[in-house]
Amino acid sequence: MKNGATKEQIEAVIKRVEELGMKAHPVYGEQKTIIGCIGNEDILRAHPVEPYEGVESVQAITKPFKLASRDFKKEDTVIEVKGIKIGGGNFVVMAGPCSVEGKDMLFETAKKASEAGARVLRGGAFKPRTSPYDFQGLGEEGLRYLQEAAKEYNMAVVTEIMDAREIDLIDKYSDMFQIGARNMQNFSLLKEVGKSRKPVVLKRGMAATVKDLLMAAEYIMSEGNGNVILCERGIRTFETYTRNTIDMNIIPSAKELSHLPIILDPSHGTGKRSLVTPLALSGLVAGADGIMIEVHPKPEVALSDGPQSLRFNEFDDLMEKVKKYLEFENRRLG
Amino acid sequence: MKNGATKEQIEAVIKRVEELGMKAHPVYGEQKTIIGCIGNEDILRAHPVEPYEGVESVQAITKPFKLASRDFKKEDTVIEVKGIKIGGGNFVVMAGPCSVEGKDMLFETAKKASEAGARVLRGGAFKPRTSPYDFQGLGEEGLRYLQEAAKEYNMAVVTEIMDAREIDLIDKYSDMFQIGARNMQNFSLLKEVGKSRKPVVLKRGMAATVKDLLMAAEYIMSEGNGNVILCERGIRTFETYTRNTIDMNIIPSAKELSHLPIILDPSHGTGKRSLVTPLALSGLVAGADGIMIEVHPKPEVALSDGPQSLRFNEFDDLMEKVKKYLEFENRRLG
Amino acid sequence: MKNGATKEQIEAVIKRVEELGMKAHPVYGEQKTIIGCIGNEDILRAHPVEPYEGVESVQAITKPFKLASRDFKKEDTVIEVKGIKIGGGNFVVMAGPCSVEGKDMLFETAKKASEAGARVLRGGAFKPRTSPYDFQGLGEEGLRYLQEAAKEYNMAVVTEIMDAREIDLIDKYSDMFQIGARNMQNFSLLKEVGKSRKPVVLKRGMAATVKDLLMAAEYIMSEGNGNVILCERGIRTFETYTRNTIDMNIIPSAKELSHLPIILDPSHGTGKRSLVTPLALSGLVAGADGIMIEVHPKPEVALSDGPQSLRFNEFDDLMEKVKKYLEFENRRLG
Amino acid sequence: MKNGATKEQIEAVIKRVEELGMKAHPVYGEQKTIIGCIGNEDILRAHPVEPYEGVESVQAITKPFKLASRDFKKEDTVIEVKGIKIGGGNFVVMAGPCSVEGKDMLFETAKKASEAGARVLRGGAFKPRTSPYDFQGLGEEGLRYLQEAAKEYNMAVVTEIMDAREIDLIDKYSDMFQIGARNMQNFSLLKEVGKSRKPVVLKRGMAATVKDLLMAAEYIMSEGNGNVILCERGIRTFETYTRNTIDMNIIPSAKELSHLPIILDPSHGTGKRSLVTPLALSGLVAGADGIMIEVHPKPEVALSDGPQSLRFNEFDDLMEKVKKYLEFENRRLG
Repeated sequence: MKNGATKEQIEAVIKRVEELGMKAHPVYGEQKTIIGCIGNEDILRAHPVEPYEGVESVQAITKPFKLASRDFKKEDTVIEVKGIKIGGGNFVVMAGPCSVEGKDMLFETAKKASEAGARVLRGGAFKPRTSPYDFQGLGEEGLRYLQEAAKEYNMAVVTEIMDAREIDLIDKYSDMFQIGARNMQNFSLLKEVGKSRKPVVLKRGMAATVKDLLMAAEYIMSEGNGNVILCERGIRTFETYTRNTIDMNIIPSAKELSHLPIILDPSHGTGKRSLVTPLALSGLVAGADGIMIEVHPKPEVALSDGPQSLRFNEFDDLMEKVKKYLEFENRRLG
Repeated sequence: MKNGATKEQIEAVIKRVEELGMKAHPVYGEQKTIIGCIGNEDILRAHPVEPYEGVESVQAITKPFKLASRDFKKEDTVIEVKGIKIGGGNFVVMAGPCSVEGKDMLFETAKKASEAGARVLRGGAFKPRTSPYDFQGLGEEGLRYLQEAAKEYNMAVVTEIMDAREIDLIDKYSDMFQIGARNMQNFSLLKEVGKSRKPVVLKRGMAATVKDLLMAAEYIMSEGNGNVILCERGIRTFETYTRNTIDMNIIPSAKELSHLPIILDPSHGTGKRSLVTPLALSGLVAGADGIMIEVHPKPEVALSDGPQSLRFNEFDDLMEKVKKYLEFENRRLG
Repeated sequence: MKNGATKEQIEAVIKRVEELGMKAHPVYGEQKTIIGCIGNEDILRAHPVEPYEGVESVQAITKPFKLASRDFKKEDTVIEVKGIKIGGGNFVVMAGPCSVEGKDMLFETAKKASEAGARVLRGGAFKPRTSPYDFQGLGEEGLRYLQEAAKEYNMAVVTEIMDAREIDLIDKYSDMFQIGARNMQNFSLLKEVGKSRKPVVLKRGMAATVKDLLMAAEYIMSEGNGNVILCERGIRTFETYTRNTIDMNIIPSAKELSHLPIILDPSHGTGKRSLVTPLALSGLVAGADGIMIEVHPKPEVALSDGPQSLRFNEFDDLMEKVKKYLEFENRRLG
Repeated sequence: MKNGATKEQIEAVIKRVEELGMKAHPVYGEQKTIIGCIGNEDILRAHPVEPYEGVESVQAITKPFKLASRDFKKEDTVIEVKGIKIGGGNFVVMAGPCSVEGKDMLFETAKKASEAGARVLRGGAFKPRTSPYDFQGLGEEGLRYLQEAAKEYNMAVVTEIMDAREIDLIDKYSDMFQIGARNMQNFSLLKEVGKSRKPVVLKRGMAATVKDLLMAAEYIMSEGNGNVILCERGIRTFETYTRNTIDMNIIPSAKELSHLPIILDPSHGTGKRSLVTPLALSGLVAGADGIMIEVHPKPEVALSDGPQSLRFNEFDDLMEKVKKYLEFENRRLG
């Protein structure tokens, strides 16, 4: 639409597009409104909307992902949750234990993490474990602790959803949904969180290209939820020294291709405590919009992912460095 | 248990194991009964069951997968569905279109496939497509066509389940469940099909090791469903000439590690019609217990996976060769 | 050239092509002669050779590899060495120890291998070991033993060349050169063996695509040596159960793209004795023109690659099966 | 050896170690001297050297790499060439065209690169091209230009050596040797540059783990040349958006395992001009000791690697940022 197109003009175009059997996705920018049309391009060739008032031009987007594409929306998307901004110069720190193991350990971790500057509390209540005999999480009890700890320390909650049937339950306790790497192409689940308007942290699958990741985001966005935060957490390669291999190229690649924010999870990306801090900073400088870090009061006794969890003092040290680099780059904690 | 242990002795041991807080999985062989105990080994050290009558010995299985392990069960598992046998010298051929696109094309394909020797009709009613804008399948209508065509041509149906909420629907129409590569670690879904007793074709994830695949099988088995058929469908590597890379090593590797049958899907494994037949035969000789093949009346106009679908005459040619090789190896169509 | 083109006509065309600043590679088939011209296509457009007598047509080959391409030469290349044929229905078995460790063990192995039907004796005299502190091979002494053992048991010798400076030395003792996976893109070495006319076994690099492999073959062929035997020995992936991952797709893929023979090395491709035989047979049926197998009198004490070397009785068993499958397929030992 | 051990004491131990049939590699640190002993550990158990004067302790290093290991030498190695320092807080910038295409373009590039702060001039005279029909480099003429341009602009030269037979030629013109990714396990070549004392830039192979890379370094070091600079240039994965995948984990991993400096080549690591600068800075912050960058006066007409070469103004911009980040981190250009 042209700069200054009126609300009526915009709605008229949306109505027309839907009459033609396509889905319309309006994106309201500060100056401009763009209306994404999903459907067969030929329809718009047969029934042009250019004659409608307020229409500037009609452009075909040929990439397989449309709503997620930088072609479709030029400016960085900034996502807000409980007053926390993510993207567009706002750097978010999500921290917490791999699994919620109990109330005390969670409150202690939330206290320390928030004091150090983390604004989002992460923690698994339902855990996707490779073995059915490993600890599977506390379930709703864990969700309740997350919500209480976040309230106490003024944080937002992000937790993984593994099953579309649990969406109401998790929605009740969590401020954001997390889709794990193993479910990146669980299309039923993607559509389900797409019906919500809560932000979704979408982790890259272990064998997913950047385009696969953006297509998964497109699944969520095509249901109407544009609040997708991409997350690199390492891919699977032949290298065995680290648990996964962080593909740092994806940070600026995703930003070239898409307007969505992207964060880095160096805890899963390396699997080694000693590598978390250098990779977190490296990701920040590559352009990441945030980090997700595993922190645990006593990693030695953690029920999952102990070797990659930071101790409190290590997390404090990381956050001091993060703040310095952000200041140097004229960015800020979200 | 000893050879000849009585039913009462067996039940007494199962009862005891469950009193101790473990799960008991009895496996009734021709000569011997084995009782798999899932839980903390220390319990059995503290409360030994050796003194119970009929107990031969108690052995710790240290592999992360237990029920799926060859250590736990020595003989090949043979799975039966509608009189069709899979495993232990019985070779199954599953064939059909990638997607069910309509009634006529499905009946035509089922007719030709069954005449050539295929006993299982495959076809997608709900399709996991990388793009949300690609054809997503006919849904229940497609399931109905599958059931009708299978009945007409005396075949069993296998179709993919992508969402735990659809299990009752798919259960109504299908004889077997298929878990796709993208859902191999969708643990909620694995548990759900684990509660059924219908056979499950479990496809290897694109970045899954043989042990990951067996752990996924273990998820299904630990819920009580031992009817798991593993399926190699190619992994993701740097090679771009083929759609995926068939890791033929996994056929005998899985057989070394597990008693479960394993089949090969050379259609997805290569992505090229010209390579399907040599790879199918190569898999047969490597020891696979079956193949899953995409067949389509007119691959040129298929809504999905046309380039890898065989034409009817090509499928006939493949089946003639399959029969000859099976005869040469003293094996038979299941 | 046309069928029946005379020697003079052929030579006239070659002379003309070279005057134009291109390289000419004549390939003399049974019926037809083809003259490959390497250089800028525009030259032939400006100075056409079609008017020359005996010329049938001039065709542009656009693949990056030309001499190795199936477009360039339709029929399978059959390579001969010491009366052994490789390719075009002739299946070659190369067998022997990973390293030549001593005279007795080599003679014993050669005796057993040749009795079982192997016609080529393999063995490393110069070994490419990941660690500089591992056994590096016996050098010229090892080469001498190879030559003597091959003479005694009527075999041909193949051994690895790792350094262009050793070509005269190895040429003196060996009937074929082997280029190892680690040197597949050692272009100096490829050019050097390209100047010889002895057959070259070219192993696929651990991260090489089928096109990379054919480009490496092209390096050898563009120097004038068309006797290249491709060899799949497994690629490097995330799978850790086997030493490498055999990409069986490459067997028919290479045959589609190229007229060169391709063999399989299941010893390196699996790294596990128990998997060698099923993979060898699987490769045979996929269309491989031969196998390369590590055999050792006492794998337990081998200085290298013990876990993947077959014992004599295991090799006998493998060869019996190979012969049966070849007979079944109307092929023969080369 | 103890702090303050005398030269005579050190030499006595070296002599003894060599009498025992082992190789001795003394490393003279500022405070301490360490004598690496390569050979069978049992010898030192049977003939202990602890009783010798000045010996502090004897420790077994069990990693497969010894001389390259951080266990063997605690402090960072700082390599010097023509007054340029690399490692231990000194950050080196190597820049230049992929191939030396002519004298003018090289002098122009060297002028601009040195003005911006690059101290090492890179450029290929012998090029490892995947196709034998691609531009193979100017050979000795290119080497002469490199030497002349470096002299004119006060830089050091690094150029690739592909063939052990060219070592004298390249040694004459170049200040450092580069081993390309394709030759990382060309052990003959590694040993040859190991006999020199000139620094060697050792690029990681496309399928090499961090341990493979350190073992390749060990090959060079075990011949006596400790001046090895590791280089990450991306590995080969399934991702196709970038030419290679930069494994940023290897920067701190290599520093944990080894005392050798490690640099990053984001030009080959991404293959895309737009990604070079963010990855270069990301690597700097991850702890890299330098970067190697392709710069070209007119990337549009480059004979090789145009799409990943920076223009002069882009390189200026990168160098300004590099200097700011180094200053922020209290590091300096080497």
